[in-house]
Amino acid sequence: MSGLHDPERLARVALGRLGEPGDPRLAALVVDLGAARVAEHLRSEQDVTGLATDVAARLRGLDPAGDLERAAREGIRFVCPGDEEWPPRLADLDHAAQLNGRGGAPLGLWVRGAGRLDALVDRAVSVVGSRSATTYGAGVAGEIAAELTTAGVTVVSGAAYGIDQAAHRGALAARGPTVAVLACGVDRAYPAAHRDLLRYVADTGLVVSELPPGSAPTKLRFLARNRIIAGISLGTVVVEAAVRSGALNTANWASLVNRPVMGVPGPVTSAPSEGVHELIRTRDASLVTRAADVLELVSPAGSHTSAPRRAPEHPRDRLSETERQVLDGVPVATGAESASIARTAGLSARRTAEALVRLRAAGFVESSATGWRLVAEGDTAAAGPRIPGQTRPRP
Amino acid sequence: MSGLHDPERLARVALGRLGEPGDPRLAALVVDLGAARVAEHLRSEQDVTGLATDVAARLRGLDPAGDLERAAREGIRFVCPGDEEWPPRLADLDHAAQLNGRGGAPLGLWVRGAGRLDALVDRAVSVVGSRSATTYGAGVAGEIAAELTTAGVTVVSGAAYGIDQAAHRGALAARGPTVAVLACGVDRAYPAAHRDLLRYVADTGLVVSELPPGSAPTKLRFLARNRIIAGISLGTVVVEAAVRSGALNTANWASLVNRPVMGVPGPVTSAPSEGVHELIRTRDASLVTRAADVLELVSPAGSHTSAPRRAPEHPRDRLSETERQVLDGVPVATGAESASIARTAGLSARRTAEALVRLRAAGFVESSATGWRLVAEGDTAAAGPRIPGQTRPRP
Repeated sequence: MSGLHDPERLARVALGRLGEPGDPRLAALVVDLGAARVAEHLRSEQDVTGLATDVAARLRGLDPAGDLERAAREGIRFVCPGDEEWPPRLADLDHAAQLNGRGGAPLGLWVRGAGRLDALVDRAVSVVGSRSATTYGAGVAGEIAAELTTAGVTVVSGAAYGIDQAAHRGALAARGPTVAVLACGVDRAYPAAHRDLLRYVADTGLVVSELPPGSAPTKLRFLARNRIIAGISLGTVVVEAAVRSGALNTANWASLVNRPVMGVPGPVTSAPSEGVHELIRTRDASLVTRAADVLELVSPAGSHTSAPRRAPEHPRDRLSETERQVLDGVPVATGAESASIARTAGLSARRTAEALVRLRAAGFVESSATGWRLVAEGDTAAAGPRIPGQTRPRP
Repeated sequence: MSGLHDPERLARVALGRLGEPGDPRLAALVVDLGAARVAEHLRSEQDVTGLATDVAARLRGLDPAGDLERAAREGIRFVCPGDEEWPPRLADLDHAAQLNGRGGAPLGLWVRGAGRLDALVDRAVSVVGSRSATTYGAGVAGEIAAELTTAGVTVVSGAAYGIDQAAHRGALAARGPTVAVLACGVDRAYPAAHRDLLRYVADTGLVVSELPPGSAPTKLRFLARNRIIAGISLGTVVVEAAVRSGALNTANWASLVNRPVMGVPGPVTSAPSEGVHELIRTRDASLVTRAADVLELVSPAGSHTSAPRRAPEHPRDRLSETERQVLDGVPVATGAESASIARTAGLSARRTAEALVRLRAAGFVESSATGWRLVAEGDTAAAGPRIPGQTRPRP
């Protein structure tokens, strides 16, 4: 199905002009009968489903071939099932619609830009979040997006203010393509301030929408758009989201199509992180702190395992088992005799005394008037006694 | 077993002077035979277990009755199994030792302060974390501790710098008792700067240790102390913890005794939150953001259900379903005719026109040269169009 005037393609363009995106009844009919037959039925006024009866007249007034030609002149093409470029993953939105009566795959996607859709989203992760992002959230979103891009993963987002913008910018900064899914026609810039951002996105990646060129954004269309962001990517990362946030809607869609939902935590005192914490606490979203965590969750099992966080090597790590036992027996504040340390360490007096001498040479212990004690120039990270090589927190 | 010279009590005091706390072999023997018989065996040099052979001589040199009397003169008492004040929950440490070969219940606890141990820890939660706490972490720890205290839950911690200190202070600020579990004798102050804090804790709550008065802290004793913090409370909250942190050791002990482990998230850019995020990400710790979340996890099922976070009421919430449908069909930027909005909303022209008039009166939409459009004075929190009543984020 490569011709611009293929009947199925024309029917999809036409049906896309009839109603609002994300109508599960229409999507299900198209899956069952094909777009051309659905359009034919509607055109002949056989009301197959209870879709509005003035549909036939409106269908007859449409010019899908003209739509495609006008779009082509603006560098916009319509990608639909049957095209090599169509991402097969979107079919999961039809399965979700069958199970939940919500959503459905888009009839097709209008795309603008240099990228090829199927290749771009073959390994793609959506990074979304609050428009009222903090500098913290925007910074983390940009960083994760850049790291994902460097790892060869395409970042998908919605080109909104805040987190979306930071995610696209992070991907672009890492010299990678990124995909922006809009709630209006791909020939429009919403928000208008992101006209340049969308041009940069199109230069190497794609600007995508299921709405025909010229369409204006509405709240319904934002919600429908969110299902495409979730459905086209391997998983969804929510960076900051207030309790009432469109990003949580995207996370819901990701759950509906059984894709990992991931959340980046933030301060519990920060309102834009509340929604993310709720997602992790009550909706089983996975906590992620960096791109490696994301890759682990969206990759086939075992192919990306996030290395556990390691503390920097500790001077203690270089000690022998005996030396460590003795060191653990040395009091923190006042000194102790070698015999008392030996008892605490459970070692003989001779081995203890030898180890103490080595520990003194290495700067771990010192002998004082009251006996051996730890050198008090440092502090472990938390509930242990002071150990050299780390700074001591103030009381 | 209330007498100061009860043989079992004296044996526990004596055995407590023999080795280091948290020896699972000794704990298991005491569970099986009772402290008095274990002490008798050891005293008669029957080496029942491979405990060191010089033990008999040392046991004979001890003066447990004198220890108790000297302690009593300083206002310190020894609480052990059989006493009404003994918290039965600590027996789980023996079960954990049987399964894992680590830990074991303490032989007894030396306590100092006005509180009664069993009553204080009947509903207790430990709040622990990094000594190198940030102001964020200390603030959250103090807040959660104060809220738990207000809810009638005793906060248990380790009196260390940072999170521990903030937790005790939060509890004291809420005019509640709190319990400090030390890695040294309860007559000592470690860190020395917390001498006043420990006095305040003892005024209404308790300072507790399994080590006899006079004992100095060592690293081993900090680790053994952590098992008591975990074992004596219903659950453990970790507020900030670097990757190598004693607080994570406490969390491990809590897991071993099957108590909820909870973590307070923070910025992913903050090193002291890294250990907490790892705990949530890889160890199934529960993310908590406030005391209500903690209460939900440590209370019998259903008795405390954390109310979901709610956004402040939205002007939209007061609209009728029809008005909302129409509003959702009004374009964000350029205007649209009533007929076009009716089509988008799926409503009749008349009902749409009526709703538009009401929406204009309520300040949601305005009519412009190009038709109806949303009033552009506000913005929803995230990926929706602008709605009155909220400030708009800057691009």
